[in-house]
Amino acid sequence: MSNRAILADNDIPRQWYNLAADLPHAPLPPLGPDGQPVKPEQLAAVFPMNLIEQEMSQERHITIPDEVLEIMLRYRPTPLHRARALEAALKTPARIYFKNESVSPAGSHKVNTAIAQAYYNKQAGIERITSETGAGQWGSSIAFACSQFGLECKVYMVKVSFEQKPFRKMMMKTWGVDCISSPSMETQAGRDILAVDPDCGGSLGIAISEAVEAAVTDPTGKTRYTLGSVLNHVLLHQTIIGLEAQKQLAAMGERKIDKVIACVGGGSNFAGIAFPFVKEKINGADIDIIAVEPASCPTLTRAPYVYDHGDVARMTPLMAMHSLGHTFMPPGIHAGGLRYHGMAPLVSQTVVEGLTRAVAIQQLECFEAAVLFARTEGIIPAPESSHAIAQVIREAKQAREEGKERVILFNLSGHGLMDLSGYSDFLDGKLSDHSLSDEEMAKGLVCLEGLPKPAGR
Amino acid sequence: MSNRAILADNDIPRQWYNLAADLPHAPLPPLGPDGQPVKPEQLAAVFPMNLIEQEMSQERHITIPDEVLEIMLRYRPTPLHRARALEAALKTPARIYFKNESVSPAGSHKVNTAIAQAYYNKQAGIERITSETGAGQWGSSIAFACSQFGLECKVYMVKVSFEQKPFRKMMMKTWGVDCISSPSMETQAGRDILAVDPDCGGSLGIAISEAVEAAVTDPTGKTRYTLGSVLNHVLLHQTIIGLEAQKQLAAMGERKIDKVIACVGGGSNFAGIAFPFVKEKINGADIDIIAVEPASCPTLTRAPYVYDHGDVARMTPLMAMHSLGHTFMPPGIHAGGLRYHGMAPLVSQTVVEGLTRAVAIQQLECFEAAVLFARTEGIIPAPESSHAIAQVIREAKQAREEGKERVILFNLSGHGLMDLSGYSDFLDGKLSDHSLSDEEMAKGLVCLEGLPKPAGR
Repeated sequence: MSNRAILADNDIPRQWYNLAADLPHAPLPPLGPDGQPVKPEQLAAVFPMNLIEQEMSQERHITIPDEVLEIMLRYRPTPLHRARALEAALKTPARIYFKNESVSPAGSHKVNTAIAQAYYNKQAGIERITSETGAGQWGSSIAFACSQFGLECKVYMVKVSFEQKPFRKMMMKTWGVDCISSPSMETQAGRDILAVDPDCGGSLGIAISEAVEAAVTDPTGKTRYTLGSVLNHVLLHQTIIGLEAQKQLAAMGERKIDKVIACVGGGSNFAGIAFPFVKEKINGADIDIIAVEPASCPTLTRAPYVYDHGDVARMTPLMAMHSLGHTFMPPGIHAGGLRYHGMAPLVSQTVVEGLTRAVAIQQLECFEAAVLFARTEGIIPAPESSHAIAQVIREAKQAREEGKERVILFNLSGHGLMDLSGYSDFLDGKLSDHSLSDEEMAKGLVCLEGLPKPAGR
Repeated sequence: MSNRAILADNDIPRQWYNLAADLPHAPLPPLGPDGQPVKPEQLAAVFPMNLIEQEMSQERHITIPDEVLEIMLRYRPTPLHRARALEAALKTPARIYFKNESVSPAGSHKVNTAIAQAYYNKQAGIERITSETGAGQWGSSIAFACSQFGLECKVYMVKVSFEQKPFRKMMMKTWGVDCISSPSMETQAGRDILAVDPDCGGSLGIAISEAVEAAVTDPTGKTRYTLGSVLNHVLLHQTIIGLEAQKQLAAMGERKIDKVIACVGGGSNFAGIAFPFVKEKINGADIDIIAVEPASCPTLTRAPYVYDHGDVARMTPLMAMHSLGHTFMPPGIHAGGLRYHGMAPLVSQTVVEGLTRAVAIQQLECFEAAVLFARTEGIIPAPESSHAIAQVIREAKQAREEGKERVILFNLSGHGLMDLSGYSDFLDGKLSDHSLSDEEMAKGLVCLEGLPKPAGR
């Protein structure tokens, strides 16, 4: 009785899947300062042209370069596990499967796009990468990837995390990457903020501003910026997760998948496992595809679908997405990777088009689910991934109540070995739930005034 | 071009390999307080009888129970990787392979025996497990295993580590296991020590005494003690590593293995990968099998082969092994798992019989090797595993100098994600080497006076 589907290296997918080619409506373009769709050349100072082309591509399948495959083959195809111990604990007739992205070098799915982005930058003659990181999952992934291609890299890490979570910084350092506290004195954006508030704890928005500035102001022209989620090309690189899962489920004898579940922050983890199944749904399959977000940052479940900026300083183009407002400050929760005001435009569109749906879950239910998962399946999940598990448990219980067999797939986006203090706080009863009041919501949404109306269909 | 050999679940070995059946000379028995070989029933208060039988077994192959296989199949067979990026960095003609044990739930090979030991205790009707842990690798592994079989578990963690390394403790807590600081007020051994020295930082020897006492004094008789290395049955459970590696190397087309390398502390990691190859060597194969220990704790390279106790308090039987003396206190190095005064009797015997050899390497060379490995192969190794990598690099360089193709296999016993402060200290230049002087050696060896003479052959 095998509980794990492993694919031979030869069976790894050779192409990424681009959902933009199959969506019922064409995606709405990002808009520049003039309100017009952004042209590729307007982004050329920020990203290399090969990635900009991918960002705007309508091709259904995009070939994965051999050099990217070769590095991914160190940890991919990742295993697909049947969670029999969890099923038994829940006494559910549902069959629960999960894709295990925690086996990557940096411990999460983020590595998949980091390798691709580093490769394309290298191909374009870029020598130096800048990026930002909040809790550090993305920063450590791009650090790993840059070490593989001999790229220099500088990561601006939100000061609060930089001081509270030293281990991600040490991972980056071990991979030879310079991680500095943001706001810093190295950029005009950082200096401006420190002049006003020398004790500023930083934010993802500020760190993005610093990383973008550092890229576009490099006089050699050999520096570009990278982002770990939200953008189309980032989501594209993650689709290998779902493509592998489809092959593995077939190998396990599963022909009908009922539920596909993943957590959402910026959207890349959800898109990675879900988009190949969204394609099946577009083609007529009956699949319930669920994005799970924290109740304290309810982008898909409570925010409007509008054009908004991806960063506080409004350096990015306007994107059509669900947004809590680019000035929104989410409460502190342990799933740091899910604290983002916006949502990937492609993910937003699948919700708008009724191809996927979203639920919001509180922190305590998620940690409770994660502890049950750790004590049954043995893997300690990232707090982000615990959101998916909480929804899986809801679905498995419902299957039990209805006495129905159901096949549930979810993505274990990463392990929680760098997040153990969150578990400790939970087990000590120190954590609490937080639902955003309408007043708290309004504080972020107010910045959306004067921006273009919600994008129609 | 595949760089990774994965075995199908169906190809996982179904039996462990017991080297005791094939050693040219029969292993010397452990001795009791009366100087006579220990009888099984004398150990019955400490271990369940099914494990005692395994400890004393001379059977060549021992079947792995289905229940143990089922849990191991969550992460086993572990991948075998070809380290092409490391080879390229070293410009070596050698082909370097490594077995990746870091993919287990607790992040190291220790989980292999933890599952088996928890299973056999459960089978024997035991309800509660005690153990000790130094840096926490073993403690977290037995915690995971106990969570799988519904066993209660208490881990005594050396106080210094308990306070300095809170994350392993949090892992155990997440798996529902009680980890307490040793010396504690819960045992007579702990109370005695605290009465003399309330600020005692603890030691592995003290923690063993507490864990054994807690097991043997439980009035219900339903508590037993477990150990993560040294003993025959622990080594037996680890042989699955080498057995898998043999199949995987054959699948990669390698017919002649020249070097097998692993780090040694208590001996279980080394034995796990090496013993199936020791068998090949006994049968005539020409293989150089190398155990790598830290220069600051040179058990195999500088200590005598004698009968000595496994713990400071001399609660264990006398075992025939290389020993620095049971009172030996090794200097603080970051590879906490390699700081043990003794060596597994079976490993000691392979060295005595010329079937394996040992080298000692300094801490700085090991960290330098580990950083090169992280920046090429992408995985951040445990400081323990870095000792194997340092020797691999020596061998690969020698192959380059001699212009010879060589096939080198080593065991990556675990990842270093819980040991990042060691990397940070190394990269900041804060670490130093330490060679034991003869005077320091003598401090431990003095306790061997009056004990039985070195065991002859």
